[in-house]
Amino acid sequence: MNRLILEEKDFILPERCLITGRRFRQLVDVIKCPVGKICKAGLLNGKRGTAEVIEVNDDSILFDVKLNEEPPEPSKVRLAIAMQRPQTFSKVLHIATTMGVKEILFFHSFKVEKSYWQSPRIQFEKYRDDLIEALEQSGDTVFPEIKFCSKFKEFTEGVLQEFSSGTQMIFGDPGASGDAHEFNNQPVTLLVGPEGGFTDYETSKLRELGAQGVTLGNRILRTEYALCALLGKLV
Amino acid sequence: MNRLILEEKDFILPERCLITGRRFRQLVDVIKCPVGKICKAGLLNGKRGTAEVIEVNDDSILFDVKLNEEPPEPSKVRLAIAMQRPQTFSKVLHIATTMGVKEILFFHSFKVEKSYWQSPRIQFEKYRDDLIEALEQSGDTVFPEIKFCSKFKEFTEGVLQEFSSGTQMIFGDPGASGDAHEFNNQPVTLLVGPEGGFTDYETSKLRELGAQGVTLGNRILRTEYALCALLGKLV
Repeated sequence: MNRLILEEKDFILPERCLITGRRFRQLVDVIKCPVGKICKAGLLNGKRGTAEVIEVNDDSILFDVKLNEEPPEPSKVRLAIAMQRPQTFSKVLHIATTMGVKEILFFHSFKVEKSYWQSPRIQFEKYRDDLIEALEQSGDTVFPEIKFCSKFKEFTEGVLQEFSSGTQMIFGDPGASGDAHEFNNQPVTLLVGPEGGFTDYETSKLRELGAQGVTLGNRILRTEYALCALLGKLV
Repeated sequence: MNRLILEEKDFILPERCLITGRRFRQLVDVIKCPVGKICKAGLLNGKRGTAEVIEVNDDSILFDVKLNEEPPEPSKVRLAIAMQRPQTFSKVLHIATTMGVKEILFFHSFKVEKSYWQSPRIQFEKYRDDLIEALEQSGDTVFPEIKFCSKFKEFTEGVLQEFSSGTQMIFGDPGASGDAHEFNNQPVTLLVGPEGGFTDYETSKLRELGAQGVTLGNRILRTEYALCALLGKLV
């Protein structure tokens, strides 16, 4: 936890927060929070600042909170990624959130197993805590907006066009010669395929819609690391 | 497994291999290998090519092997990274190996817990299989060379100079303005700190030796993702 993320419900007075539960345990066990310690803090989807420890009790910490700094600039990258197996889904959320992506769209594609769409992990209540932890890690305060499109046809017939509006679409393509570097700090929609890759039909469809292939070199990376390396080039 | 990695001991004839154990199970259970199927293959630390399934038995597969392609170009990046907790150590090896880094040096630094140096995971016999799996993933055949330096003093008084010879040293520094992009495809030694970062003394020491700070933006990433994003910029 590099920054304590506060929620409206933590405030017992305008500038005073009472923290219990998971965050209390981590503050006490891992970070050590004696009275007087000043921690980095931020209000979920709001401003950043500091929280000073006022009182440490058996199961709660009382903080004096000052928030007057804007959250970091969002990334210009939007991420449209094929639905992944549940464990990879969580990693994708963590990576994209910690790297500042604020718009994420999971879509269906031929090589996505249908069961992935039934996983409880893709319910907001299940992944909300993962997002909070990603914000705590990165020091950001703003949730990404997460959308789902479980039909490839709908995805390519309207959903993607709307999602990517005003950006250049690019996708990882081992055969391409262009490098994602060229799009550094540009408004880009990054398209990432499923574990087994896009089918030829899918890539031709994406190209038709204006997406450009970029290479990641001639080695094959796990989806989460390919995503992270591509975002590294772009942000 | 995107490429079957063969070892000298698998060869029962000059162009014939008998595969058992973990690789057999994965070939049969995950990849499905009927007689006649042609798989990508490569000899550990040697050439790449194909392996055709000749016979599938209860606990082994017989392949006809043709190897005539060079392994992919190694990355120009050398990686000097502070020793990590055992789980992160394995992730670092996986990421660096799949991204083509061939020289990796783990060094001691103030915020590295001493116990990390006692972990059995940093023994070659323990991480050898992780390296094989990374090669199977990426399609490469060549092991990285892995070195250790458990004293920061020794590291900065000779070991790092020798390791980084002929390259520009760079390190992730939240306060820096330079971007790692500038060193794309250049001979670089990438220095990565421990989980809690380098101390001021350590960064000043690294600067003295010619290392240049580069930024990854104003968000804080987990070590493995920071590494992956930086390598994404460099390779």
